[in-house]
Amino acid sequence: MSKLANFREIGRKIVCVGRNYSEHAAELNNPVPTKPILFLKPTSSYVAEGSPIKIPKDCTDLNHEVELGIVIGSRASCISVEEASQAIGGYALGLDMTARDWQNEAKKKGHPWSIAKGFDTSCPISAFVEKDKIKNPNELDIWLTVNGEKRQSGNTRDMIFSVEYLISYISQFFTLEPGDLLLTGTPSGVSRVQPGDVLKAGLGDVVSMQFKVEA
Amino acid sequence: MSKLANFREIGRKIVCVGRNYSEHAAELNNPVPTKPILFLKPTSSYVAEGSPIKIPKDCTDLNHEVELGIVIGSRASCISVEEASQAIGGYALGLDMTARDWQNEAKKKGHPWSIAKGFDTSCPISAFVEKDKIKNPNELDIWLTVNGEKRQSGNTRDMIFSVEYLISYISQFFTLEPGDLLLTGTPSGVSRVQPGDVLKAGLGDVVSMQFKVEA
Ligand SMILES: [Mg+2]
Ligand SMILES: [Mg+2]
Ligand SMILES: [Mg+2]
Repeated sequence: MSKLANFREIGRKIVCVGRNYSEHAAELNNPVPTKPILFLKPTSSYVAEGSPIKIPKDCTDLNHEVELGIVIGSRASCISVEEASQAIGGYALGLDMTARDWQNEAKKKGHPWSIAKGFDTSCPISAFVEKDKIKNPNELDIWLTVNGEKRQSGNTRDMIFSVEYLISYISQFFTLEPGDLLLTGTPSGVSRVQPGDVLKAGLGDVVSMQFKVEA
Repeated sequence: MSKLANFREIGRKIVCVGRNYSEHAAELNNPVPTKPILFLKPTSSYVAEGSPIKIPKDCTDLNHEVELGIVIGSRASCISVEEASQAIGGYALGLDMTARDWQNEAKKKGHPWSIAKGFDTSCPISAFVEKDKIKNPNELDIWLTVNGEKRQSGNTRDMIFSVEYLISYISQFFTLEPGDLLLTGTPSGVSRVQPGDVLKAGLGDVVSMQFKVEA
């Protein structure tokens, strides 16, 4: 088993990409970006299956965003798009849980997004997926249901920036290290969750997961 | 020696506070906040004495912000102000290096601050300071010179939110873990640095440090 199976414990950052699918940018009335929009979650935001997603106190609009996660396998700084796939150590399925009310307030004031995106349990995450289980990360179905009803259904081929482009771009700013996670953005269909909701999500035929939402 | 002497290697997040001194809020034409403004740097942004601060490519306005750092000593989630000092494991002196041009662009667009604040070498950091070396973290001189000329000179008694208030507040959103660092905001006097500049900074009479700026 890869030592990266442990990425939640050994990784030290989670770099996320905003608005990487044009239909999702449109559903929130945001312009389609001309360069990747990057933000961070702390690793304290991870939650694994078996534990609940907790709605943070005073958040009134918690949203799900299902996303392909890339687990970094080797140190990468200022690498090219051509070199990028060598930095991939494996994959995971992640939810970028977002306190949309807090994020909207931050956007209006020009404030950072960190608490809206990084509160405890804001990063529900699947088991590690070995690299060779996925032939092409830019050609993968990704979906999410709430209480059995389909809410998000997309394919990573619709990402504005490819996995390799994102790795190269991010590595120009942040040195990537083994166990770090990249979340590559969400397709359209984001919606508010309520206490008691059950979220199921899947990535191609390689991994699926389930989380309950709690107040 | 405390195992926390190693905090740069074992810590997994850096939580920073914006505008925690009213004179600094005023010098950037920002309102004085009514609650702490939080953002994250990744641990890949650490740089220790002996290595340079690198101006990121295409940044034209890199600023220094000298700040008191709190090294977390024990896990803390949703703790009270009264319990907060127990979570302190020690201290460090840090610089919150900021690509002000990138941050201003992000603020205007309602985008995250992460690359403006988190690029490689954006967190120059001193050696670990044992907890018992500092009697009261809310009563400490803090200063920074550029090429021998005083630029920042403040005292942590002028912080809007005290160290204990900040730890308690942050712990409501992010579970704090041993080795995590909190940067508590900067006094007024921030200014642009240039390649070749030498920054010296100090905290009371307990620690000082020096960094060179490179293109
Ligand atoms: Mg982080
Ligand atoms: Mg997202
Ligand atoms: Mg600062």
